[in-house]
Amino acid sequence: MNEFKYVDKIKSPDDVKAIDEKELPILAEEVRKVLIDTVSKTGGHLASNLGVVELTIALHRVFDSPQDQIVWDVGHQVYTHKLFTGRYDDFSTLRQQGGLSGFSRPYESRHDIFFSGHSSTSISAAYGLSSAKTLNNDKHHVIAVIGDGALTGGLAYEGLNNAGRSKDRLIVILNDNKMSISKNVGSLAKHLAVVRSKPLYFKAKNAFAKFIVNIPFIGQKLKRRMLRIKAKLKNIIFGRTIFEDMGFRYMGPINGHNIELLIDALESAKNLKTPVLIHINTIKGRGYNHAEENPSDFHGVSKFDINTGDPIYVGSNFSAEFGKYLCSLAENDGRICAVTAAMSLGTGLDEFSEKYPKRFFDVGIAEEHAVTFSSGLSKDGMLPVFAVYSSFLQRCYDQLVHDVSLQGLKVILGIDRAGFVGEDGESHNGLLDVALLNSIPKTTVYSPATYKELQEDLYKAFYEDGGFVAVRYPRGAENALADEIEINSGNFDVFGEENAKIVIATYGRLFFNAYKAMKKLKENGIDVKILKLNRIIPIDKKSVSKVENAEKIYFFEEGIKSGGVGEHFACILLEKGYTGQYKIVAVENQYVAQASTKELMKKFNFDCDGMVKIITEGE
Amino acid sequence: MNEFKYVDKIKSPDDVKAIDEKELPILAEEVRKVLIDTVSKTGGHLASNLGVVELTIALHRVFDSPQDQIVWDVGHQVYTHKLFTGRYDDFSTLRQQGGLSGFSRPYESRHDIFFSGHSSTSISAAYGLSSAKTLNNDKHHVIAVIGDGALTGGLAYEGLNNAGRSKDRLIVILNDNKMSISKNVGSLAKHLAVVRSKPLYFKAKNAFAKFIVNIPFIGQKLKRRMLRIKAKLKNIIFGRTIFEDMGFRYMGPINGHNIELLIDALESAKNLKTPVLIHINTIKGRGYNHAEENPSDFHGVSKFDINTGDPIYVGSNFSAEFGKYLCSLAENDGRICAVTAAMSLGTGLDEFSEKYPKRFFDVGIAEEHAVTFSSGLSKDGMLPVFAVYSSFLQRCYDQLVHDVSLQGLKVILGIDRAGFVGEDGESHNGLLDVALLNSIPKTTVYSPATYKELQEDLYKAFYEDGGFVAVRYPRGAENALADEIEINSGNFDVFGEENAKIVIATYGRLFFNAYKAMKKLKENGIDVKILKLNRIIPIDKKSVSKVENAEKIYFFEEGIKSGGVGEHFACILLEKGYTGQYKIVAVENQYVAQASTKELMKKFNFDCDGMVKIITEGE
Repeated sequence: MNEFKYVDKIKSPDDVKAIDEKELPILAEEVRKVLIDTVSKTGGHLASNLGVVELTIALHRVFDSPQDQIVWDVGHQVYTHKLFTGRYDDFSTLRQQGGLSGFSRPYESRHDIFFSGHSSTSISAAYGLSSAKTLNNDKHHVIAVIGDGALTGGLAYEGLNNAGRSKDRLIVILNDNKMSISKNVGSLAKHLAVVRSKPLYFKAKNAFAKFIVNIPFIGQKLKRRMLRIKAKLKNIIFGRTIFEDMGFRYMGPINGHNIELLIDALESAKNLKTPVLIHINTIKGRGYNHAEENPSDFHGVSKFDINTGDPIYVGSNFSAEFGKYLCSLAENDGRICAVTAAMSLGTGLDEFSEKYPKRFFDVGIAEEHAVTFSSGLSKDGMLPVFAVYSSFLQRCYDQLVHDVSLQGLKVILGIDRAGFVGEDGESHNGLLDVALLNSIPKTTVYSPATYKELQEDLYKAFYEDGGFVAVRYPRGAENALADEIEINSGNFDVFGEENAKIVIATYGRLFFNAYKAMKKLKENGIDVKILKLNRIIPIDKKSVSKVENAEKIYFFEEGIKSGGVGEHFACILLEKGYTGQYKIVAVENQYVAQASTKELMKKFNFDCDGMVKIITEGE
Repeated sequence: MNEFKYVDKIKSPDDVKAIDEKELPILAEEVRKVLIDTVSKTGGHLASNLGVVELTIALHRVFDSPQDQIVWDVGHQVYTHKLFTGRYDDFSTLRQQGGLSGFSRPYESRHDIFFSGHSSTSISAAYGLSSAKTLNNDKHHVIAVIGDGALTGGLAYEGLNNAGRSKDRLIVILNDNKMSISKNVGSLAKHLAVVRSKPLYFKAKNAFAKFIVNIPFIGQKLKRRMLRIKAKLKNIIFGRTIFEDMGFRYMGPINGHNIELLIDALESAKNLKTPVLIHINTIKGRGYNHAEENPSDFHGVSKFDINTGDPIYVGSNFSAEFGKYLCSLAENDGRICAVTAAMSLGTGLDEFSEKYPKRFFDVGIAEEHAVTFSSGLSKDGMLPVFAVYSSFLQRCYDQLVHDVSLQGLKVILGIDRAGFVGEDGESHNGLLDVALLNSIPKTTVYSPATYKELQEDLYKAFYEDGGFVAVRYPRGAENALADEIEINSGNFDVFGEENAKIVIATYGRLFFNAYKAMKKLKENGIDVKILKLNRIIPIDKKSVSKVENAEKIYFFEEGIKSGGVGEHFACILLEKGYTGQYKIVAVENQYVAQASTKELMKKFNFDCDGMVKIITEGE
């Protein structure tokens, strides 16, 4: 009762090469079935993976991975590659604890050359690899696969600019699916549209070229000369593409769902001794009509109903609450602007973008620009908020320092996905933002635990605090206890018995676990009080005096220990002469692999049971 | 006995406008005299400032600063602008404590619109300003001035890409002096060379256009139509520039030393209602033959002899020692590669670039790419070291996390200018790198105090430590005491009496001040011992046990307090049960303005006297 003819029998790229060329469309169809089926159960990146099935087949037909190295940008199109490189059997474990990663992970397979997750790195990495190959006289190939969305990132441009002048054999495949995650608003997108509308330059099926190539030596030389003449001719007739200005040989645009054309183009590129860019057109979500129709909705998805395409869970969350409240503020204040780096949907800004299109700026996958641009808006009197995932905030550290904080400009950050993000794993966890912001002078950071606090903190950020203010909140919904516990939304709040000698200090959503732990410990006869911080940078000195007479302080921090608030708090205590015990429970000197947020909370003793265990052991 | 006819009488841009057009070349000559004279005494950025004298005159003739806003990229070409905006009388205080900044500083003058110092920010900032103007219906102009070097930075591209699709009135002036700080190696430089070789497209002196423009309404419309026709014609004949692909109206190339042409071009740009890029050619160092001949040497200079162009002080320094030692390692190890982001000279890599050109990579002003590219080199077995100023390291935080540390790749950083840099001020001090690196898991950081330690630490970085390792060292030379004191170059060393109850903990060059303070305190009857850290991340636990029985620990840190090693050390002590006193003396929640390093050491109590004072007061 095996439903598949090919896909489940592929153990390595050799098995892809062994399939009769005419049968490859069947393989593609089978792959798509596996992708849709699996992702409907595991969640993951669907639309982008469906777009590159044929490309991945062609790559593994023409090149020999892992000696030839394929570098996947962002990595949300790497599923088919995983299926072809010995990971079919484990594919159902995708994005689960201990299972396959949703991105490229060298520790998972030697076919995954470079770690991925963040955008626009592939060209730089591939150029490093090809430079090493040139130095080592290694004739294998390096191929970077990058989408048009990722190409809006400055790093991709730095890579193109630098690689374009080299003589390395480097192949860049531009997977042009006519959109980044949100709608692409850069001029590059416009340029690509112009290029797409031009006649096909690269005629892959050239019988004459194939014939002369088969004459050794002379054939290759002649072909190269022909290509040169053709290139000149093309410049005269069609003008140049931006990629040629950047020093790349250009081929395309090519139908990215035609395996035969793709194979021919890759074969030709293989014979060139210069950097070459192959421009292919693909359809995001190809083969699953719900995804083709709403590719943005199916970029990164949770579990969904395979027939209707509807997500299985729908409810509010911090992103949505952020967006909703921002709209209500913007209604009464024309200075408020919202900025996103291609994450309008993910950060809850869709309603804002529809209601206030003139004050909404999607700048592409360009976090650095987003910040400096916001500074410019601020300088001339606007009130910009840049909504960004914690993990991607890492990409604009210097802009936060040099263009915002140093200038004392009022720019607000809405930091989404702060803390564990779950299934996306190492590259996406928001564990560094607090330490990162902690090092920037004159910064204010709030870490609300509830929607109500989120609103109040945002209000303060816009209208009470000066300068640079960040409000950070986790992925998902607020804790069910949020309605039951009354929280004073000042800089901090204290819970439990005034005179308890054991203190749990914490912030953000961990507060609710601490609250449960406090109740449970009380039942066990251990008195604990909680210091819940809301403003985590700078620390309100009054909060320190609430705990300085404690005998033991446990600081629970859903973030990196080194440079975090727990260490900062320790230092304040020590400088004030605190002589009790102190223990930080945080993420220490490591990156955290994928698992559900619940599993991660347990693993790091951040859940109620973990807290109870640690404090009980400390007695 | 006044030698000047104009420059010393200019109090505001109005005075520039009042000068007869024919006399402007005299003004330019006078400005150059002031620049050369002053910088020979104060040090500063000379060559780049000499290149934009005419441009600055033209800008202040055509636009009304500060209502029209000029955003200077990097800011090392802002001196003439300062002379024209009421700062002539203070110009001799350039780069000195309490004096004028060498960069654009809004707190110094309302004519300095945006803070500068780091590269490639101007287009993003200017687009933010122009967007705010569009929203506020403010008809004033925004002009970004950016060099071809700064254009290699990804942020500039992100700005161009995003602004190019807007309808804002935004003028970008590309100041093309055919080189970035070091030789420009990107393909963009090649593209600019091609553009430069083409016939002048923009004929500024168009009598007919001027005539019809003077007819109100109709004239403007007709002119716009003419410009459109001209643009189409141009595309057919000359092909397009990359800037047009990015959505900008293009004018140029124009001789940037011809004031009349510049004024005409700016007047025309002023009338356009779209983003426009004016490409001007200038000569870096123009008007001072030593600088014209060696523009790289005169990019950023110390005091020099005005007749010979020779620097007044010559001696070795950490950068030179770094470069020299790297060459000696590279001689015996073909895997060692050196990477720089347009700072070959500043980071001491010139010898390396000559001896090992194939293993030397100047990637342009592109720190993000430099890191990710290095990761690629490392992945394929090379041993790359990226030499970068501490302050510019801020630009590649995410690449250090995502492309190096997370992957466990062996990439080495040579962090130059760590700590105070002196005269360049706020934007250039290297005070954040330690806190920044402290937040990145699995990182090793050394902070040597002597050349000998620098060598030993580099050796360990290449051959003993795994993964990501940074070696950071200050601007300038080692302390004269380096030869006298024997330092054990392990992870730490202890000086003074074993049983002293007062401890100074410190690292890097502050050690020598601590050493002097220890001697002086001894004379005053106060026993102190010193814990000198060499490896500052991770802290060697054995070093903690050397001081945990102290009564008082003073941690002196030439860097930001929050998130720094002093706080980290405090936390280790507290978690180990330390109950003595603890005090960090560091830079706290502020940016540090220009002054000599000596003055800054004094200001922050980092010099011998400061340390003695603090410790004596603590008794």
